[in-house]
Amino acid sequence: MSPTSSPVRILLTGGTLDKVYDERTGNLVFSRTHLFDMLDQARCYLVNITIEPVMLKDSLDMTEADRAAIRAAAQRSPETRLLITHGTDTMTETAHDLANHVTDKTVVFVGAMIPYSFGGSDALFNLGFALASARVLPPGVYVAMNGTVFDWHNVRKNRERGRFEPLHP
Amino acid sequence: MSPTSSPVRILLTGGTLDKVYDERTGNLVFSRTHLFDMLDQARCYLVNITIEPVMLKDSLDMTEADRAAIRAAAQRSPETRLLITHGTDTMTETAHDLANHVTDKTVVFVGAMIPYSFGGSDALFNLGFALASARVLPPGVYVAMNGTVFDWHNVRKNRERGRFEPLHP
Amino acid sequence: MSPTSSPVRILLTGGTLDKVYDERTGNLVFSRTHLFDMLDQARCYLVNITIEPVMLKDSLDMTEADRAAIRAAAQRSPETRLLITHGTDTMTETAHDLANHVTDKTVVFVGAMIPYSFGGSDALFNLGFALASARVLPPGVYVAMNGTVFDWHNVRKNRERGRFEPLHP
Amino acid sequence: MSPTSSPVRILLTGGTLDKVYDERTGNLVFSRTHLFDMLDQARCYLVNITIEPVMLKDSLDMTEADRAAIRAAAQRSPETRLLITHGTDTMTETAHDLANHVTDKTVVFVGAMIPYSFGGSDALFNLGFALASARVLPPGVYVAMNGTVFDWHNVRKNRERGRFEPLHP
Repeated sequence: MSPTSSPVRILLTGGTLDKVYDERTGNLVFSRTHLFDMLDQARCYLVNITIEPVMLKDSLDMTEADRAAIRAAAQRSPETRLLITHGTDTMTETAHDLANHVTDKTVVFVGAMIPYSFGGSDALFNLGFALASARVLPPGVYVAMNGTVFDWHNVRKNRERGRFEPLHP
Repeated sequence: MSPTSSPVRILLTGGTLDKVYDERTGNLVFSRTHLFDMLDQARCYLVNITIEPVMLKDSLDMTEADRAAIRAAAQRSPETRLLITHGTDTMTETAHDLANHVTDKTVVFVGAMIPYSFGGSDALFNLGFALASARVLPPGVYVAMNGTVFDWHNVRKNRERGRFEPLHP
Repeated sequence: MSPTSSPVRILLTGGTLDKVYDERTGNLVFSRTHLFDMLDQARCYLVNITIEPVMLKDSLDMTEADRAAIRAAAQRSPETRLLITHGTDTMTETAHDLANHVTDKTVVFVGAMIPYSFGGSDALFNLGFALASARVLPPGVYVAMNGTVFDWHNVRKNRERGRFEPLHP
Repeated sequence: MSPTSSPVRILLTGGTLDKVYDERTGNLVFSRTHLFDMLDQARCYLVNITIEPVMLKDSLDMTEADRAAIRAAAQRSPETRLLITHGTDTMTETAHDLANHVTDKTVVFVGAMIPYSFGGSDALFNLGFALASARVLPPGVYVAMNGTVFDWHNVRKNRERGRFEPLHP
């Protein structure tokens, strides 16, 4: 098996990527994941992927128990290549946590600035970018956003500019 | 510089990805590339990318002179990582040609089954997937379609099913 | 019953509005009508509408037999308010034909310059505009395109500019 | 001039229709109106329309002063046919207010359940439906939503079901 078709497990945790507009309340909420729709739109037919829903949460609402659940899912995964969908606000915190506990796997975090269900979303590009990264990168914990792969220890979200940046350029 | 931020040159050659609907004639035509719009939608701010338009053509119309122009552009590129947008119908032919002439660079071909400008397009996902592949893969010629990276010598387009497959699974 | 909720029959005949992109051949084809999707997207819940598929054709391919079928459907309709989806290229010809044979009903023709399934389509606006016109206008044959209601005898498609215009402004 | 091309003034007041997603905060906000984009997408070239921005507000935040401003704009309009974009939550309240003060004009209220900038929006259909209604209906105050024209005194928003209904069916 070539490294480019290594099996990947996708852990779903929520975040903007999966939010939808609730037309009765005018709020953004979670109903179900869009990962299956996205992989279908991307014509991913032969792809060796397992999808495991862990939670659907805004990452600002994540607790220590939530992070423990993500950590446990990553640790017990038989696949050594993991993609984790995650809200962008605390993505780097969860990445730090995982880096302390999972050292023998390739773990790539991904999210979106605009929900997949809205016009102009970055979600499809980001998912494609992160999936290829998860397929090919050596073991380590990474954040794949804005067309860039960041090492977990050298990335932050610049909230004013709405983008991820290296801590030490 | 980490390998994940290596500079990438994108060579544009056309294909379904960049086609638009001409509402006066009802045909699909080329007007301009959508790559800049796509990278903008993907919030690719810090990305070290050079874009070089070579042509905008349906790949069924490509001549030997066109393939020679693509080959020349790949050979003279100062960047050693290349992404080539290309129509899907003869993508593997051009990949074969390049594999015979460019051996010291990472070359990733990408296209789309549905134009970026239409609803339900796979173009954004494919571009993200191919960009990460071009950033990380070792030298070689690849086709990145359907969420899979194929080696140039083990891929064909199954036209009946509308997808890329390995020749030898 | 107020005139604004009069029952309307929609006769489907095809045209650009209902075309889709065939990703295997790269051509625009008909598969099924999108009218149900469109009325669903428009949240038309209480609307007194009957949908009758007559054909799904490019209007350049319409024969005299096709026009006779449209005419027969219009004549036998128990509803006196009709909306007809139709390709734009020969919409005015079919409107002329109907005006000679159906004089006691409100008949509104509508189509689209861009298929509903593509980005940037005018189809949803046009359908909304034409439905309200069919609900409220007095008996007669009309073309509802470009945000304008034209009388059948004072409209032509300007193919170079891709729009409908009055013959006598 | 035929009644179907009577000049129409569009008063903009805001509402869901014009909201956008703020990717820095994750909230829905107003930045600018989308009416020009919408009329452009609808290929409304010859249409005799004047657009007057009155405010861009969530209709739950409208004050008596806001309603007075809308009323004044409607009263001083030289065009006797008015379309008013408005949030759905208090659309019927503003319609009641106008019905008490503007009796010689055709006033049609319209909004959207999903912002125009999101996928699956009803905004384009609603705008088309309301524009045709404003062009053709006799003087009176109307709410044009869900593919239906309601008289101002016989309509309510059913918030649980997310739709407009007649008070007395």
